[in-house]
Amino acid sequence: MIHGFPLPPPMQRALALAEAAGRCGEIPIGAVILHRGRIVAEAANETRSRPDPTAHAELLAIRRAADALGQERLTDCTLFVTLEPCAMCAGAIAHARLAVLHYGAEDPKGGGVAHGARVFSHPTCHHRPLVYGGIGAERSAAMLRRFFAERRVGADGSAPADDQ
Amino acid sequence: MIHGFPLPPPMQRALALAEAAGRCGEIPIGAVILHRGRIVAEAANETRSRPDPTAHAELLAIRRAADALGQERLTDCTLFVTLEPCAMCAGAIAHARLAVLHYGAEDPKGGGVAHGARVFSHPTCHHRPLVYGGIGAERSAAMLRRFFAERRVGADGSAPADDQ
Repeated sequence: MIHGFPLPPPMQRALALAEAAGRCGEIPIGAVILHRGRIVAEAANETRSRPDPTAHAELLAIRRAADALGQERLTDCTLFVTLEPCAMCAGAIAHARLAVLHYGAEDPKGGGVAHGARVFSHPTCHHRPLVYGGIGAERSAAMLRRFFAERRVGADGSAPADDQ
Repeated sequence: MIHGFPLPPPMQRALALAEAAGRCGEIPIGAVILHRGRIVAEAANETRSRPDPTAHAELLAIRRAADALGQERLTDCTLFVTLEPCAMCAGAIAHARLAVLHYGAEDPKGGGVAHGARVFSHPTCHHRPLVYGGIGAERSAAMLRRFFAERRVGADGSAPADDQ
């Protein structure tokens, strides 16, 4: 709850996916795609377990939604993701023609929507979704802070992680 | 050959992959990744045949190279691709920590390296490869022009394509 409003169920689901990924040692980021109000794809970060540097939650969810719908363009779809997408994922959102993007926490260091490359802001960007930031931001940011704090003290013996 | 110099074999291979993709109705773009001088992954665009809006040649090649090497980071790798990468693929190149990027033709409309989002140019970009453009550019650009010209006249009965 933020200011008395419950989070939309798709963002609650994305946060749950993020939390489960964090328990497996993946950076806790989750994504859900709705097609006309119905969940058609969901994913969490899988970069380490695969290993695949492109396996961000958004990219996996887009691939799964395209596969589920049997089409390259997700024009009637809405993406919920717990963190501001990076440049790679923002580019994928434009290619997929996603109609709406809801993201949770801002990412001043790695984000590519409101920070850095600002992928949707260039005249050559061929598609811009409607963008809403901040939904579930507090829970998402707290989860990420906790994940990195635990890794910095070497709780699981692995090297510190600094990005997705 | 450009100005009497033969193209590097990896770019020749990337152009051959692009040409084969074009014959299958995919936008003719090909990519090859070398690890310490040896080809470890290659790919061409597959966005339509899958369908998957993220299935650009570079992204597929990065996923395959990470899988082949069993690691998320491609620090000792060089990517050859026939067209300037878009923002999505440039972001993937940064995440993969690719050491060197050679691309063929410039892409003023869809490119994200020397145009548009210029992904590597922002202070928050966490990795910048060495970038060399223009190798094989004439052959790559001619192939793309021919592909779109044939589609505009409806030679294969399909709808016009305007991007990857």
